[in-house]
Amino acid sequence: MNNKPLNSWRRKLHEIIYEADTPAGKLFDVVLLIIILASIAFVMLESVKSINVKYFELLNVLEWLITILFSIEYIARIIAVKKPLKYIFSFYGIIDFLSTAPKYISLFLGGIHALAALRALRLLRVFRILKLVHFLGASQNLVKALKASRAKISVFLLAVIIVCIILGTIMYLVEGEENGFTNIPVSVYWCIVTLTTVGFGDIAPQTPLGQFIASLVMILGYGIIAVPTGIVSAEYTNQFKNEKTPKKEDVNLNTQSCPNCSKENHRDDADFCYNCGHKI
Amino acid sequence: MNNKPLNSWRRKLHEIIYEADTPAGKLFDVVLLIIILASIAFVMLESVKSINVKYFELLNVLEWLITILFSIEYIARIIAVKKPLKYIFSFYGIIDFLSTAPKYISLFLGGIHALAALRALRLLRVFRILKLVHFLGASQNLVKALKASRAKISVFLLAVIIVCIILGTIMYLVEGEENGFTNIPVSVYWCIVTLTTVGFGDIAPQTPLGQFIASLVMILGYGIIAVPTGIVSAEYTNQFKNEKTPKKEDVNLNTQSCPNCSKENHRDDADFCYNCGHKI
Amino acid sequence: MNNKPLNSWRRKLHEIIYEADTPAGKLFDVVLLIIILASIAFVMLESVKSINVKYFELLNVLEWLITILFSIEYIARIIAVKKPLKYIFSFYGIIDFLSTAPKYISLFLGGIHALAALRALRLLRVFRILKLVHFLGASQNLVKALKASRAKISVFLLAVIIVCIILGTIMYLVEGEENGFTNIPVSVYWCIVTLTTVGFGDIAPQTPLGQFIASLVMILGYGIIAVPTGIVSAEYTNQFKNEKTPKKEDVNLNTQSCPNCSKENHRDDADFCYNCGHKI
Amino acid sequence: MNNKPLNSWRRKLHEIIYEADTPAGKLFDVVLLIIILASIAFVMLESVKSINVKYFELLNVLEWLITILFSIEYIARIIAVKKPLKYIFSFYGIIDFLSTAPKYISLFLGGIHALAALRALRLLRVFRILKLVHFLGASQNLVKALKASRAKISVFLLAVIIVCIILGTIMYLVEGEENGFTNIPVSVYWCIVTLTTVGFGDIAPQTPLGQFIASLVMILGYGIIAVPTGIVSAEYTNQFKNEKTPKKEDVNLNTQSCPNCSKENHRDDADFCYNCGHKI
Repeated sequence: MNNKPLNSWRRKLHEIIYEADTPAGKLFDVVLLIIILASIAFVMLESVKSINVKYFELLNVLEWLITILFSIEYIARIIAVKKPLKYIFSFYGIIDFLSTAPKYISLFLGGIHALAALRALRLLRVFRILKLVHFLGASQNLVKALKASRAKISVFLLAVIIVCIILGTIMYLVEGEENGFTNIPVSVYWCIVTLTTVGFGDIAPQTPLGQFIASLVMILGYGIIAVPTGIVSAEYTNQFKNEKTPKKEDVNLNTQSCPNCSKENHRDDADFCYNCGHKI
Repeated sequence: MNNKPLNSWRRKLHEIIYEADTPAGKLFDVVLLIIILASIAFVMLESVKSINVKYFELLNVLEWLITILFSIEYIARIIAVKKPLKYIFSFYGIIDFLSTAPKYISLFLGGIHALAALRALRLLRVFRILKLVHFLGASQNLVKALKASRAKISVFLLAVIIVCIILGTIMYLVEGEENGFTNIPVSVYWCIVTLTTVGFGDIAPQTPLGQFIASLVMILGYGIIAVPTGIVSAEYTNQFKNEKTPKKEDVNLNTQSCPNCSKENHRDDADFCYNCGHKI
Repeated sequence: MNNKPLNSWRRKLHEIIYEADTPAGKLFDVVLLIIILASIAFVMLESVKSINVKYFELLNVLEWLITILFSIEYIARIIAVKKPLKYIFSFYGIIDFLSTAPKYISLFLGGIHALAALRALRLLRVFRILKLVHFLGASQNLVKALKASRAKISVFLLAVIIVCIILGTIMYLVEGEENGFTNIPVSVYWCIVTLTTVGFGDIAPQTPLGQFIASLVMILGYGIIAVPTGIVSAEYTNQFKNEKTPKKEDVNLNTQSCPNCSKENHRDDADFCYNCGHKI
Repeated sequence: MNNKPLNSWRRKLHEIIYEADTPAGKLFDVVLLIIILASIAFVMLESVKSINVKYFELLNVLEWLITILFSIEYIARIIAVKKPLKYIFSFYGIIDFLSTAPKYISLFLGGIHALAALRALRLLRVFRILKLVHFLGASQNLVKALKASRAKISVFLLAVIIVCIILGTIMYLVEGEENGFTNIPVSVYWCIVTLTTVGFGDIAPQTPLGQFIASLVMILGYGIIAVPTGIVSAEYTNQFKNEKTPKKEDVNLNTQSCPNCSKENHRDDADFCYNCGHKI
């Protein structure tokens, strides 16, 4: 919107909230992480009936406290960026809103169950903070390997699903409704449970033929679990090798975000944003 | 049969149905894929009693619609090839016939259960379409690795089955009929369930000795799951090495240099120099 | 014993029974394989009550037929080698005896259950024949990799067992007898079931604390399943690399066995036994 | 405390107890290992009601015997080191104390259940002895690989837990209390059970939507089990490469040449030349 730089205190606020290079910024992240985890713990405890009955008052107060803290953080985030709308409609902006709003809405509409559960979305915010940890660690190779193998694993999982549908239909015909395979979707569900070696046992084949086919499914599942593992192993080993030679591309990216366009992951030695040319 | 080239419209038809290079061919594949998936969904829903009772009429009409569409496709496929007999008796030709015919047969014989389930074979047609995707993707290495390790994995699975038969016999003797191990085939079935770490729990050892042997089986299963994985990993890593000629650069940073300060290694999505803020 | 060469027909017999290089030798192996598999099938079917009641006579006759065939084979094996005692007390010699004798003993003592099950040992004979297949295939690298990783996997499995005993004791204290963890051995058994991701569900934690610890155990199990897989993958990849360079050591070993000392796996170009110097 | 060297017999004692290089030291370790394993076996048997009732006296005597032996060992360890306090407050010093004391305390307070279970800590002592084995074996690469991948596996497991909390919350909303998902912690527990492919089956989704989500969870779990395996495989393969300097020959064939015909590459266990039958 306006192109003049942020005034001093908003720049300061931006540094604390969005970056993790200064002591204040790090402290902010750690405190926020603790509050998020605590709030998740409260949401979980609230769902336990015996605890909710006993400590209803306390949990309600704590929930209000956390909601207010998150509201302040939300407003501070809006103030600290130059283009607030961009933040509000960003992925994390929406998460921040959705995970804070339910408590206010409950004032007018009463505690709607599904709405309250939206608060579990707060957990997604952890990723925002962990993204910073990510740059400290060296798991970039892993992410690269996963990205490289994404397509192949998708194809593999698709093939698994097709196999499950066909085998599920066969099991439906073989075992029938009287043995728990009440319809094809349930049989397919059973087939996925078996092929992935989960094996709940809520549905299990009773006829000899069904058990024989189940054995084949299991041995198949045992054999093909090797495929995704092989893919990731090979890709990752490959990443290892590629990395050891060029080395010069190992640019240190930091956690600063541009005060103008909010792009992150600048080079450590950058003085200007690579996206908009604004001074960092 | 006749050796003269197909006349123009049959050539055109062939292009649309059997190839995926032209826009029309691609469109045909996508539409067919959607119809196949929809028809599978209908077959699955039909097997759910509550849905079948409620929407019997609608499902019947949709099934007829799909059957007619598939019939048209089947005839078109016969027309479009030079040697129709070869298509008719090919793998996919038989699949096409078997997955379309049941509805017509049901007119005369009524809805035979097992026959109706033949329609699930339609799913196999998905592979015909995906085969095209396969060539677009780069999963050829994976297929090669799987082919290379097929023999070894077969030997491995054979050994697993032999171990299961021997351990199953032992468990039958140890646990006996009163604990669910009613006969050797069932014990072998249990052994496969356990060794593959599926573990339904419909049959579980009750005696201390049986639980001890079961523990050994499980730890054995935990140890040998490494074998197929190791095979595929190694073969796949090997495929990687044989292939790695082009050695592309890490795409994230490009080779552009700033027209102002000549700094290199900008991010690929950079519009401005990270060093001097000049437009690139 | 005597050092003079076997006379012609015994030499011939030796070739058929112990080797798989001649057509007659191959045929013998294939026929034997089929008989073994059939006899295993009969043993399994015999244990199924409904089948045993119905076809008792038929199964009994077939069992006698197979027992006699195996007896003939056993005697032929003794005749065909120069040192029969060495064969009789070898691993396969004992297996051959134990898997044939029960039927004869049942004549005098009646069908003793556990004794009859000894017949399942026949399955081990499959390995004798498959050993031949092994040389045809190329799974020697796999065997080498498994041998190389044997020590490490043993250490790993030992650590798994120790972890299971400690966690099992903790679960026994946490859950107690009223939730199915009746004593420490059972708790340890449960812990192995869980850590190996088998999960029967015959015993499952009921208390929140127990479920929390169980969660840790499962995530631990999920994490450490990577260890044996990693070991085998790495060793096997390594075998691949070592193999590609020297090549000259790739000696073809054949299936002949020395008529004098029964040693197997001679070099294909060998004319004399490497063990006793006897002419092959 | 005092800086003068240990006098002769304490030096001797130190050598026996803390080292495994001398025969006496090795013997001490082996005897100790046996006593520890025996004592663990007694603790386990004691928890089995039927055995405890029958052999209470015997188990009690054995337990006292072991406690006294461990007490002597504990005192000997204190005497044999120069700085006893350092040992007493070391990890193993505390383990040694905690695993010996309960029996003495039971004299005054009676057999407190939880206290008695402290004796299971004795198992941790096994690691002290195995540490020595570890240096004899060659599993250092494995340990290095695990250390190198520790950080990445931790990040991975953290992500798994976050995914489980979010999916658990969703399942709680979808299935609800009437299907066993009584509260969010239990749902998260179920989610961990499913994602790690353990699958107890004590809780299983009943609604179609719940089963659909469960299928996704299982396929996800099947796909991501590849990640830790890939990490360990790659790290371990990497360790291998760094190490492979000596490149020993394939041991099966040696470099001897026949004194008669000069053929080389005999089997290592060969006593006669495979070419001419001459004694090597």
